[in-house]
Amino acid sequence: MSNSSFDQLAVNTIRLLSVDAVQQARSGHPGAPMGAAPMAYVLWDQFLKHNPADPQWPDRDRFVLSAGHASALLYSLLHLTGYDLPLDELRRFRQWGSRAPGHPEYGLTPGVEVTTGPLGQGFANAVGMALAERWLAAQFNRPGYELIDHHTYVLASDGDLQEGVAAEAASLAGTLQLGKLIVLYDDNGISIEGDTDLAFLEDVPRRFEAYGWQVAGPLDGQDLEAVAEAIQQAQAEPNRPSLIVCRTVIGEGSPNKAGTAGVHGAPLGDDEIALTRQALDWPYTEPFAVPPEVAAHFAEAAQRGQQRQADWRKALDEYRQAFPDAARTLQESLDGQIPESLDGLADLFAETASISTREASGRVMNLISGQVPALIGGSADLAPSTLTILNEAGHIGPGDFGGRNLHFGVREHAMGAVCNGIAAHGGAIPYASTFLIFSDYLRPALRLSALMGQRVIYVFTHDSIGLGEDGPTHQPIEHLMSLREMPGLTVIRPADATETAAAWQLALQRRDGPTAIALSRQNLPVLDRRELPPAAEAAKGAYILWEAPPENGGPPEVIIIATGSEVPVALDAGKTLRDEGIS
Amino acid sequence: MSNSSFDQLAVNTIRLLSVDAVQQARSGHPGAPMGAAPMAYVLWDQFLKHNPADPQWPDRDRFVLSAGHASALLYSLLHLTGYDLPLDELRRFRQWGSRAPGHPEYGLTPGVEVTTGPLGQGFANAVGMALAERWLAAQFNRPGYELIDHHTYVLASDGDLQEGVAAEAASLAGTLQLGKLIVLYDDNGISIEGDTDLAFLEDVPRRFEAYGWQVAGPLDGQDLEAVAEAIQQAQAEPNRPSLIVCRTVIGEGSPNKAGTAGVHGAPLGDDEIALTRQALDWPYTEPFAVPPEVAAHFAEAAQRGQQRQADWRKALDEYRQAFPDAARTLQESLDGQIPESLDGLADLFAETASISTREASGRVMNLISGQVPALIGGSADLAPSTLTILNEAGHIGPGDFGGRNLHFGVREHAMGAVCNGIAAHGGAIPYASTFLIFSDYLRPALRLSALMGQRVIYVFTHDSIGLGEDGPTHQPIEHLMSLREMPGLTVIRPADATETAAAWQLALQRRDGPTAIALSRQNLPVLDRRELPPAAEAAKGAYILWEAPPENGGPPEVIIIATGSEVPVALDAGKTLRDEGIS
Repeated sequence: MSNSSFDQLAVNTIRLLSVDAVQQARSGHPGAPMGAAPMAYVLWDQFLKHNPADPQWPDRDRFVLSAGHASALLYSLLHLTGYDLPLDELRRFRQWGSRAPGHPEYGLTPGVEVTTGPLGQGFANAVGMALAERWLAAQFNRPGYELIDHHTYVLASDGDLQEGVAAEAASLAGTLQLGKLIVLYDDNGISIEGDTDLAFLEDVPRRFEAYGWQVAGPLDGQDLEAVAEAIQQAQAEPNRPSLIVCRTVIGEGSPNKAGTAGVHGAPLGDDEIALTRQALDWPYTEPFAVPPEVAAHFAEAAQRGQQRQADWRKALDEYRQAFPDAARTLQESLDGQIPESLDGLADLFAETASISTREASGRVMNLISGQVPALIGGSADLAPSTLTILNEAGHIGPGDFGGRNLHFGVREHAMGAVCNGIAAHGGAIPYASTFLIFSDYLRPALRLSALMGQRVIYVFTHDSIGLGEDGPTHQPIEHLMSLREMPGLTVIRPADATETAAAWQLALQRRDGPTAIALSRQNLPVLDRRELPPAAEAAKGAYILWEAPPENGGPPEVIIIATGSEVPVALDAGKTLRDEGIS
Repeated sequence: MSNSSFDQLAVNTIRLLSVDAVQQARSGHPGAPMGAAPMAYVLWDQFLKHNPADPQWPDRDRFVLSAGHASALLYSLLHLTGYDLPLDELRRFRQWGSRAPGHPEYGLTPGVEVTTGPLGQGFANAVGMALAERWLAAQFNRPGYELIDHHTYVLASDGDLQEGVAAEAASLAGTLQLGKLIVLYDDNGISIEGDTDLAFLEDVPRRFEAYGWQVAGPLDGQDLEAVAEAIQQAQAEPNRPSLIVCRTVIGEGSPNKAGTAGVHGAPLGDDEIALTRQALDWPYTEPFAVPPEVAAHFAEAAQRGQQRQADWRKALDEYRQAFPDAARTLQESLDGQIPESLDGLADLFAETASISTREASGRVMNLISGQVPALIGGSADLAPSTLTILNEAGHIGPGDFGGRNLHFGVREHAMGAVCNGIAAHGGAIPYASTFLIFSDYLRPALRLSALMGQRVIYVFTHDSIGLGEDGPTHQPIEHLMSLREMPGLTVIRPADATETAAAWQLALQRRDGPTAIALSRQNLPVLDRRELPPAAEAAKGAYILWEAPPENGGPPEVIIIATGSEVPVALDAGKTLRDEGIS
């Protein structure tokens, strides 16, 4: 290890900005930023392809801070590299209205790719991002035009790697050969209850090798060259995702608190900060200091980013000339557009007397599949029951991203989190399906879909006692109501096939949040709409999703209103028109 | 492989009973029972220590069918070995009122140790059982008196091993060195969507070695000798849990359907059953046939079991003489008894003006710790925040089961499922703690606590906006209501320290189901009870938990009634007495 004094100064700038933010807030997590600052510096300084002036550039590398409690680290990096996050926001870290909140929040802070904090989620989101990248590349790249070609980086903690959702996602990433996913593992050996040996004695590198990952290290997380070399090796591996195990010391730099659980979630205190500055040969005594040479160096990131995005735009312009149709579809996909009306939906169930809403959903999906080429997704190993296969669209499998049908395996939780990552990446509209009862397995991810406002479409079948003989472990009771209580989630329980079509259209149109569609296993009559708005009207949007204003901060009420009849009919999604005495 | 013709006949008896039950029901899963019958036969015939006449014998081996969809396999084994499960129940497989329901249900069928079906749960339950066994052994065994000395066996499927909850539990089991946990992995390579290679290409043996497990195989799951040898090796390993990887063929024996996804979840059909009988040289044409020599052989299991339990009772009698105090505590623990009133609870908060309910809970726990020696548990790495450490009770760590404080790691889901296993095993009363927001992570396990009626105490702290600056990812909104909707779960949100004490007492007294206690991070006033029932009354049970009769199958309403005042006061758990205009 022979870090230059400049690099050390830059690392300490990140460290101490984080320390100062936590101290100012009298609350937060200084330990992880201090220990992980070197690896984060190497990544952001030497490797990360991004343009701080345009956090939405589609071909940027994604950086996910799965260890969301280390948010001060991310805010420090965003500030230094020129994102719209002034130092004043760091001074208001964790305060009401700040853009530097306790944990990173998607949509609030430029450069924050996903909301993290609940451990394991960010890791699994990143798998979804890396998958979206490979999928878009397979759809749209052409020889000489690698328009989609970027990495997904993760900074993950011990806690992230203990969570089952990360384990599920890691196994899936290895299976799918997501070679452009690179995880820096901040292996600091400390968790809240003390030494990780208390509960976490496994051989993490070996586990990830078993998943089919390339593993580097354990290496000294303070050795900038070693970290850089490992990232280079990771980039050189086309098929295997990479885990870089960096041994670090939590609270590195603090003479009295480094390496202890006490530095995980509490400010260092003024005295220890003074000692830390001294120990790090830090030339300033006031908080939030940034040495001018460090500021100047980081500012180059913005220039580099501008140039790289300009080059990319130029390539995109040429691509538009050469492949106008593909370019148009790419643009629509990146913009998240769907057609205003979907052809054929109107008459789809005109001749159908009775059909389960799951089967209706499957027919709708296959009808619209060609019209919404960004729609990709699958099931947690229940597709033959949830009927969510896009028949003409091909499959996504190991190293093969040409299709649109995903196979998540029996991994509901990762399915939800991966779909969040796909949606957050952009360019694809993900759907996830399982039985309604198993929505419990993915509830933490579903809540993050809602919190982030991601368009993820959850297809939950086998609603109600109609699921059959599988019994109480498979029969949803409280699930529909529990989902309706989740703020930001739209829940639709269509009464028949026509409403199922409308539900799908509404879910696709809802760009700013997730929709859960609860569907029956058993056949249901298709309601007679001769006196009522025909299915055609429904498909054209004559059915309106009405969200009652949330009362007392509760979830929105979802009502389907059929507007074609003489008087608008307020139809609760759980009831049939006959229940209302209409038919 | 050289299975004797008798063994083959016995295996085929298990296979065909399962096939016939599924066919009779016109619904169910024949494939897994057919493929896994040989390994199950070896285990039940040669190794399983049990007494079919007394399914509650405390020192029996536990057998967990984690792949609950293979329930017909378990029912066949239970019937053949002499449990109270007549053939008529198998004939009514998956029918209303049958004791052979679609998935195994705890409390319904003798010999079913836990309710399984949602994948991964049974595996994690088994970790809890193996832990309970080691813990009871550490507490109560004495030289020459190994009263607690049994194995926990699991039959797990590909799907089980894809679930994150199983991954979390496997890591914990390796860390804790649960050497008496033995998992037979039915590696049939087929899942519902097709070949497991679609989504599950990892190296499972290597992954389990990384967790610190002993791994045998892959071996031929039809080779009875090889399976037996692997189980012997697993039993010989004192510290590492064992995974025995058995390559099997789903639907083995069916000439046209073996090895296909089609045999997973649908009956074979009469024609294919006829062909299967032929292929297996089965001497009968009617369904549900049991060759008399097979029946006689399995009946020996009951005799062996009677003898083994009689020997154990004799040892227990001697132990009672030699160690009367320990014997009494052991008996009380196995009976699940707690003292009728808990000393010191009455005055615990008499002098306290203000305290957070999480801290009050911690003080209650430490007060009662000595009086309820069966209470064990911990947190998913948040104990310093949830305040759930039993200060005088010591810790449970790798190979060390003398203490009572568990460290689950950042594994909420496994925590819930492991606690279900501890409770189902008996002899200990488990508690699990995390932030209320993270109840989502363990919701599937919590639902199984409720469905099984297990006394698991969930301590959920950091309720409400009072959690502080951690932000929306950490702030529960819908969680309290979502939990209240879960049938069979008692939810208490104490208004102050006194109610917290009552909540703990009620949770301990509730032997037939789980209780979730929602607690504040911030201080709350201890309500003035000079005019109201004193805390003493509360602790003596003058506070009554009243469960309103569930309406429309909904969850019970939980009300705390303070009976000491002139008129009983109905106090909603979410409100304070002041809210009611009382104080």
